[in-house]
Amino acid sequence: MQAFQLAVGIDIGGTHTTLGIVNREGKICWQQQLNTRDYKTPESFVVALKSTLQAQIDCFGRDKFAGIGIGAPNGNHYSGTIELAANLPWKGVIPLSKMVESAFHLPVQLTNDANAGALGEMIFGAARHMKNFAFITLGTGLGSGLVTNGQLVYGHDGFAGELGHTIALSEGRPCGCGRKGCLETYASATGLVTTAIEFLQQQKQFETFPEHWLATIWQQQKQVSAHDVFIAAEHQDPTAIAIFDYTAKILGLSLANLVALTSPEAIIFFGGLANAGAHLLTPTKQYMEDNMLSIFKNKVRILRSGLPEANAALLGAASLVWA
Amino acid sequence: MQAFQLAVGIDIGGTHTTLGIVNREGKICWQQQLNTRDYKTPESFVVALKSTLQAQIDCFGRDKFAGIGIGAPNGNHYSGTIELAANLPWKGVIPLSKMVESAFHLPVQLTNDANAGALGEMIFGAARHMKNFAFITLGTGLGSGLVTNGQLVYGHDGFAGELGHTIALSEGRPCGCGRKGCLETYASATGLVTTAIEFLQQQKQFETFPEHWLATIWQQQKQVSAHDVFIAAEHQDPTAIAIFDYTAKILGLSLANLVALTSPEAIIFFGGLANAGAHLLTPTKQYMEDNMLSIFKNKVRILRSGLPEANAALLGAASLVWA
Repeated sequence: MQAFQLAVGIDIGGTHTTLGIVNREGKICWQQQLNTRDYKTPESFVVALKSTLQAQIDCFGRDKFAGIGIGAPNGNHYSGTIELAANLPWKGVIPLSKMVESAFHLPVQLTNDANAGALGEMIFGAARHMKNFAFITLGTGLGSGLVTNGQLVYGHDGFAGELGHTIALSEGRPCGCGRKGCLETYASATGLVTTAIEFLQQQKQFETFPEHWLATIWQQQKQVSAHDVFIAAEHQDPTAIAIFDYTAKILGLSLANLVALTSPEAIIFFGGLANAGAHLLTPTKQYMEDNMLSIFKNKVRILRSGLPEANAALLGAASLVWA
Repeated sequence: MQAFQLAVGIDIGGTHTTLGIVNREGKICWQQQLNTRDYKTPESFVVALKSTLQAQIDCFGRDKFAGIGIGAPNGNHYSGTIELAANLPWKGVIPLSKMVESAFHLPVQLTNDANAGALGEMIFGAARHMKNFAFITLGTGLGSGLVTNGQLVYGHDGFAGELGHTIALSEGRPCGCGRKGCLETYASATGLVTTAIEFLQQQKQFETFPEHWLATIWQQQKQVSAHDVFIAAEHQDPTAIAIFDYTAKILGLSLANLVALTSPEAIIFFGGLANAGAHLLTPTKQYMEDNMLSIFKNKVRILRSGLPEANAALLGAASLVWA
């Protein structure tokens, strides 16, 4: 094996942290999990990283490692810090990059999870050989990473790529960020459920036809999940189809605007809601095309992630080393 | 003088084409104009370029020239072509880059005028030393060029950076592009006049107070210009101030969304309407800040172009050689 053919990937999540050793072809040679919440301070977390990883690095041979890539909520590429991450046990601004560099004496790259995901697609996934694309995770929220000219768009301060916090509907739904109408309040699992409840509450009397799955669940449980909406759509429930259509309409317009600015070769979707597949992505593509300037029409591919879902975050983190 | 310290800039407009020789510091050493409409074919246009420019290049010394930069409507950087430009006498797809390269045996770079403007600001103007910024021309329409990581964003097909054709208001005003609600139908000289007419027509009876300049012009001439709106605002006409405020509100929201995607250090304005200065840019900045995600607030500078207006397009074209 040549020198610098391995990278450490560290994906830090609110609950779990996944560590792995990844080779240049995207094969995970070794991996392990830590419970993020077990470590009350970032210092104790780095001690745990050291005791778990160092022996493993030594086994593979330290000179084979190109570096360590870290994906973390609110991770800032320029400063190497995690800044005010609501889901992590450590408060304030954590200089994690420097701390990990001191512990391992290897170069460290750090960014947020959506940016790491974008680079993962570029190095190992659906965006291999692409120089201009957008990566969008549709989960609880909407995260995104943009690549132009073969480089991630970090912007002046390292926080670029916040498609989820572009305002899709002026004076729209309240968002966790304190503003109104952000795209992620519509185009995310949370947004889909909000739409579902709005639609179901508007139905004056519930239909009793067997295909009205969602209304039945709503009547029985007084709540629905994004998965319920998906299953209902699979059974041709007209309300569920209308909910996906509404979501697709808002997302499709935002994508058309994103294309006008960055003209990507493809938009790559990842995450729970992206798995709703045809129910969401097919009408989204249609609305995107309908709203697109003619020079961009029928040029932009809508793709699903090319990474295995269980390992995508780890591969994304490792890919930072080679991006 | 060192080798490669000069560039030829060619700015092709619907009426005039400006040719110039520019040094690395942005000094225009020589310039001349052609009437674009005098040349019915691109071949005759290139013959005219050759007969005007070649002797001049020889005078300065051919080995001092780094290349030729061309800014043209619908210019495509990747293909070096001008594609279907409505304002030019030449129809179809013109391989101008290749034609000029053959005529002069110098490297040629070509792009559209807004992109050339952005590079002009980066090399010679208000964006010197910036790696992430947006350049916006507010003229008859709204053109824009985006720079991230120190490079112009051309996108996959060379047509990125169309902020003017992002949809600002769904189902809004009809745009020349065939769609509705494009930002440039509001935020441009044309858009400002449309807003003015809408506002004036809504006024049931015209006030006769002396400060109601715009209504007076409207009553007398049944038309108003963007300059009229500016002059009226200078005289504190409340209708004119409301027209700028409406324009600023729509532009400010679009800029907040642009910032969320690209996190620029500055947004640089150029063109006739940008000269309305405080009447437009001050409320635009306020609406941008109001609509911005908190991590971006009070970080993004709103600047006026750092290039002399009369020579900006020529300097932009020349800067292509050094970008």
